[in-house]
Amino acid sequence: MHLNAIIRQRARGGGIITLGHHEAAGENTDAAFEDAHIYVHFKAVYTLALKQGLGKGNCRHICGAQKLFHRNDLRARARLVEPLREGVMGLDHASMKPHERLAQRFEGKLGAVNALIRARMASKHAPRIPEVTAHLVEAGGKRLRPMLTLAAADLCGYVGDHDEKLAATVEFIHTATLLHDDVVDESAQRRGRATANLLWDNKSSVLVGDYLFSRSFQLMVETGSLRVLDILANASATIAEGEVLQLTAARDLATTEAIYLQVVRGKTAALFSAATEVGGVIACAPEDHVKALFDFGDALGIAFQIVDDLLDFEGDSATTGKNVGDDFRERKLTLPIIKAVAAADAEERAFWSRTIEKGRQEEGDLEHAIALLHRHGALDATRTDAIAWTDKAKAAIAQLPEHPVRDMLSDLSDYVVARLT
Amino acid sequence: MHLNAIIRQRARGGGIITLGHHEAAGENTDAAFEDAHIYVHFKAVYTLALKQGLGKGNCRHICGAQKLFHRNDLRARARLVEPLREGVMGLDHASMKPHERLAQRFEGKLGAVNALIRARMASKHAPRIPEVTAHLVEAGGKRLRPMLTLAAADLCGYVGDHDEKLAATVEFIHTATLLHDDVVDESAQRRGRATANLLWDNKSSVLVGDYLFSRSFQLMVETGSLRVLDILANASATIAEGEVLQLTAARDLATTEAIYLQVVRGKTAALFSAATEVGGVIACAPEDHVKALFDFGDALGIAFQIVDDLLDFEGDSATTGKNVGDDFRERKLTLPIIKAVAAADAEERAFWSRTIEKGRQEEGDLEHAIALLHRHGALDATRTDAIAWTDKAKAAIAQLPEHPVRDMLSDLSDYVVARLT
Repeated sequence: MHLNAIIRQRARGGGIITLGHHEAAGENTDAAFEDAHIYVHFKAVYTLALKQGLGKGNCRHICGAQKLFHRNDLRARARLVEPLREGVMGLDHASMKPHERLAQRFEGKLGAVNALIRARMASKHAPRIPEVTAHLVEAGGKRLRPMLTLAAADLCGYVGDHDEKLAATVEFIHTATLLHDDVVDESAQRRGRATANLLWDNKSSVLVGDYLFSRSFQLMVETGSLRVLDILANASATIAEGEVLQLTAARDLATTEAIYLQVVRGKTAALFSAATEVGGVIACAPEDHVKALFDFGDALGIAFQIVDDLLDFEGDSATTGKNVGDDFRERKLTLPIIKAVAAADAEERAFWSRTIEKGRQEEGDLEHAIALLHRHGALDATRTDAIAWTDKAKAAIAQLPEHPVRDMLSDLSDYVVARLT
Repeated sequence: MHLNAIIRQRARGGGIITLGHHEAAGENTDAAFEDAHIYVHFKAVYTLALKQGLGKGNCRHICGAQKLFHRNDLRARARLVEPLREGVMGLDHASMKPHERLAQRFEGKLGAVNALIRARMASKHAPRIPEVTAHLVEAGGKRLRPMLTLAAADLCGYVGDHDEKLAATVEFIHTATLLHDDVVDESAQRRGRATANLLWDNKSSVLVGDYLFSRSFQLMVETGSLRVLDILANASATIAEGEVLQLTAARDLATTEAIYLQVVRGKTAALFSAATEVGGVIACAPEDHVKALFDFGDALGIAFQIVDDLLDFEGDSATTGKNVGDDFRERKLTLPIIKAVAAADAEERAFWSRTIEKGRQEEGDLEHAIALLHRHGALDATRTDAIAWTDKAKAAIAQLPEHPVRDMLSDLSDYVVARLT
């Protein structure tokens, strides 16, 4: 294997391993990486442990790598020699995904968050509320957003339980927007289950969504921090504005990448960045750390949404819970299509106009759409964008002091893009 | 005329006139009251002006009465001798309704509130937002809720502009719930105009509603008062809970008056009471005054909604903007129907079950429903309830120190019921 592993010592007995490969991405190098986590295991256990003079009992704190993938050099706009992976995890976590490691670290806190969510979604007077909410809240979401708040607070040394309240707040806002989105999109499925608007009705989805918004509002008021309230109020406005913008821009071929970014900031990134920022704020972190946490959440959210757009054309419905082509059938002008439209000739433009703007889709249109995306390299270009945002996320989080959670969040950024491979 | 008028001196050169009639309500006494405002005018101008030694130029500050009506003694559960009217207004206001007098007093502040509303409903990125909002915000609503906040703050001696922010907040919350209500009710008309969900679509109504909620949230955060935020967060939760409760209770004949009250507190009274309470809070009023303002808003809101229910059967669509029987056709179990159902025999119960629960309405059903309401005195009993809540509102506001605005609010309570006559 042609791997270079650089092991750096970290605080609290952990370490960071940077893996590099001095050949461009290709079939052979892909194969070389296949079992790289074993190599990293090996190297970490023996090199690091020896360096530190630690026994095997400390191996929990030694870094491994979980999943390795190639990366393009975006600054040079070429597939170049690059460090491919920077990761950290306990060795017994070698097979765990970053969000699973975060979930393990915050197991106790997440339990408290879940208890809080259940307690606050209850309604003495309107049993329909917990019915609808439970359907969604307990549908097996990853609790990614609440985990970001817990992680940001922990990373900044927070001690207390306001992080739990804010984590529940963020999940309530997320659930409320999902309920309203399903009404707006007229969706029938979410996370592989029938949506609430289908099981109950649009009315319940609208009103229970409103209820969860108001509950989230009550929870954040309990933290007593006006700054937290300001951040979440602004995030709420950005979310709602992005949703309305999407409504008018979604099927308009004139939509630019700049407008797309605005929509994505609204529908995804605003809540991610608020989730991480409030974690820093309640921990009274220095301003530059709070700013870095915001930037991390913002970039992570954008990368997350771009990857989601890609998965619509490339994903495996078994793992994503989405069917390939759902966005296309719903006539959503996602980033790959925006790129393809920008490069389209007259005939292709007519195709996009018919399928997206006018919504007159026929048998075979999805296949033709995918072929057009490939013809103009739109999927690769979109992936490049996703990786660029992942890099921004990692650069932001790297500004925070060394901490195991910092590295988990950095890994999480990589994992967002790794979903594509 | 058998009227007794008691004139009490008030601060700022005004006065209160209490009119009483020592005979039970009946045709003759009704007639006696018909031109009572002329009598009050006369008495006020000459008695009060003489007492005060004021010239005619001060008549603006002399009280008159606008509309007089009978009232039952509810404590004794009998139609008894009662003071019939307590009113205050400038003489040049004799023909103005209480909310018009409030609007005149707060003309400047209301202008600032309207400017704030227009500024905050703008969206740089999503022009759909101000389109939808303007349709509703500028549809000629009375701005009753914002006026309650301005009045409460003024009454408690507030100086500053947070009252304007909170007035806009309250109007935004109100507008957002109207947008969502229209989706839930599948309404086609509101205030005599086509609803936003009809002009645009349900999606726009849901998302623009969310946007206004988040804007209201930003505005209230700007006041920097955690207590205000707490009050409005709790009100929001009560509103949403009431709406969901209504969804499940609206067509269920088992719905009791207690459940009805819960729904009404949610859909109307919670925002009224929050509007008045926050006015007292920003003015740093003593706790018992804040409590009295809450109680006033709560009772006023409940009276307002009960009257609204009655107007559905008794109203004049030219003045109410509602068609008679709209609620019945929408199968809403309003208070008169709840009372009639409680007194129904088997055949009548079957009628309510068919028309409300099952929604199988036929030609002539509305007329039969109204006949049933009359048969059981349901409309009179509902009116008695409305008056009882009006009395509670007036008793609450009477706990505040003398002030022209206090009397306008007291008049406003009467006017709510006076809409029925």
